[in-house]
Amino acid sequence: MADKKRVLVTGMAGQIGGIIRRQLGDRYALSGLDRVQVDDVPSTVADISNYDGIRPAFEGVDVVVHLGADPSPRGPWESILDNNIIGTRNVFEAARDAGVKRVVFASSNHVVGYYPLKQDPYKAAYDGRLSEIRRPFPALTTELIRPDSYYGVSKAFGEALGSYFHDAHGLSVICLRIGWVMTPDDPTFSPPSLSLWLSHRDAAQLIQKSIDAPSSVGFTVVNGESDNALSIWDIETTGNVLGYQPQDGAGEDWTPRDDSPSII
Amino acid sequence: MADKKRVLVTGMAGQIGGIIRRQLGDRYALSGLDRVQVDDVPSTVADISNYDGIRPAFEGVDVVVHLGADPSPRGPWESILDNNIIGTRNVFEAARDAGVKRVVFASSNHVVGYYPLKQDPYKAAYDGRLSEIRRPFPALTTELIRPDSYYGVSKAFGEALGSYFHDAHGLSVICLRIGWVMTPDDPTFSPPSLSLWLSHRDAAQLIQKSIDAPSSVGFTVVNGESDNALSIWDIETTGNVLGYQPQDGAGEDWTPRDDSPSII
Repeated sequence: MADKKRVLVTGMAGQIGGIIRRQLGDRYALSGLDRVQVDDVPSTVADISNYDGIRPAFEGVDVVVHLGADPSPRGPWESILDNNIIGTRNVFEAARDAGVKRVVFASSNHVVGYYPLKQDPYKAAYDGRLSEIRRPFPALTTELIRPDSYYGVSKAFGEALGSYFHDAHGLSVICLRIGWVMTPDDPTFSPPSLSLWLSHRDAAQLIQKSIDAPSSVGFTVVNGESDNALSIWDIETTGNVLGYQPQDGAGEDWTPRDDSPSII
Repeated sequence: MADKKRVLVTGMAGQIGGIIRRQLGDRYALSGLDRVQVDDVPSTVADISNYDGIRPAFEGVDVVVHLGADPSPRGPWESILDNNIIGTRNVFEAARDAGVKRVVFASSNHVVGYYPLKQDPYKAAYDGRLSEIRRPFPALTTELIRPDSYYGVSKAFGEALGSYFHDAHGLSVICLRIGWVMTPDDPTFSPPSLSLWLSHRDAAQLIQKSIDAPSSVGFTVVNGESDNALSIWDIETTGNVLGYQPQDGAGEDWTPRDDSPSII
């Protein structure tokens, strides 16, 4: 049996890091990098805003899954700067310096978040005005960005940086514009979640397909959602490029809850 | 006669700042912001990486022309971070906070610089392989970025930030992907300059049209080159959106010089 791929996950202590540990822990030789200790896997405790602190964790790694970030679309500039901009540059540079072959970068729908917040028919989906929706949707592809927050801007920055590192240094970079991974894993509480849901199982598959994609996948930006009835996101391309085939999908029914988080 | 527009220029001490002072000094009530003193116009000496230091300069300003940056495509990350990322965020935030109506942002061809460095037919133009070029060029539009440097990434960041500030705060943001402004104003020394040249006179016109464009121009990203025979850049859109009509254009002849700067 071939040796398992050595996969370093930044932000391993977070929600998606937990999904990776539970669902992909047997498939890869996982290691973690986070500001807090993670017990299940070998891990480095360091802050990605500190290059020298994180560099050793990249030694001997095949693929980096870069999830570490301020994950809040409302994150203030200072935190976004340290964690998502400086931190992401440090991760790409450490990966390059260590000879890592691929970085899977957790980008976000918030890179284009102002389309569904401002522009029909995307807005109609987020608002739950189902009767106004004509099918099929013109699906949102990944070309024209329209970030909705400093967070979204920082993810656009990460994609641009990935493009540069690919062209300049030959690093393979797969940018996943992840929809909405939630715990509990239940998309039925608000209209935007019915469009954006990425189930835990589909998230694990998407990341696995990204890690295992052939080296011919040099640089790409793809959307990552489940097969949702209200999807406004182009996930066909994700299937074509990575072989991603979502197993889950949200329907069109939901019950608004008092604690429904707003989308931004 | 209507009052002159109050226009603050960051990086006023630089090359393009000098062009603005010489060619547009009578048209607007100019003020400057730079790390060094500028004598011809009222100016603030401050570093754009220091928000509190620059904020007063934005009071009462109608339009900001944001040129201040590390202008080197080879600039190291630390300098690009301070000047082009943190500095550009501070300029947009100060403009918003002061009620400025528009920011004209000096972006760069380096946002897409890896197309002409790596991909024909753009590469053929940069290499001077004129016989291999089929006309017309498929002109490079502004949609798919491919930055060639930390500098290029920082300019892509600035465009993303401008899109966000426009959507979130109603600020008008015009991003000019400026080609190559050079002193002396002579494009005949290398093939890339024959494609990228933006003459001093055309630079002044482009900035003037951007300052004076109607408020219906909310957010846009356009290329800024002269009408060059070897142009690979879409400047038709620039004409349609801003009314820009270049007066100059480089021909196809050149004499390589020993001191020809490389493009990156």
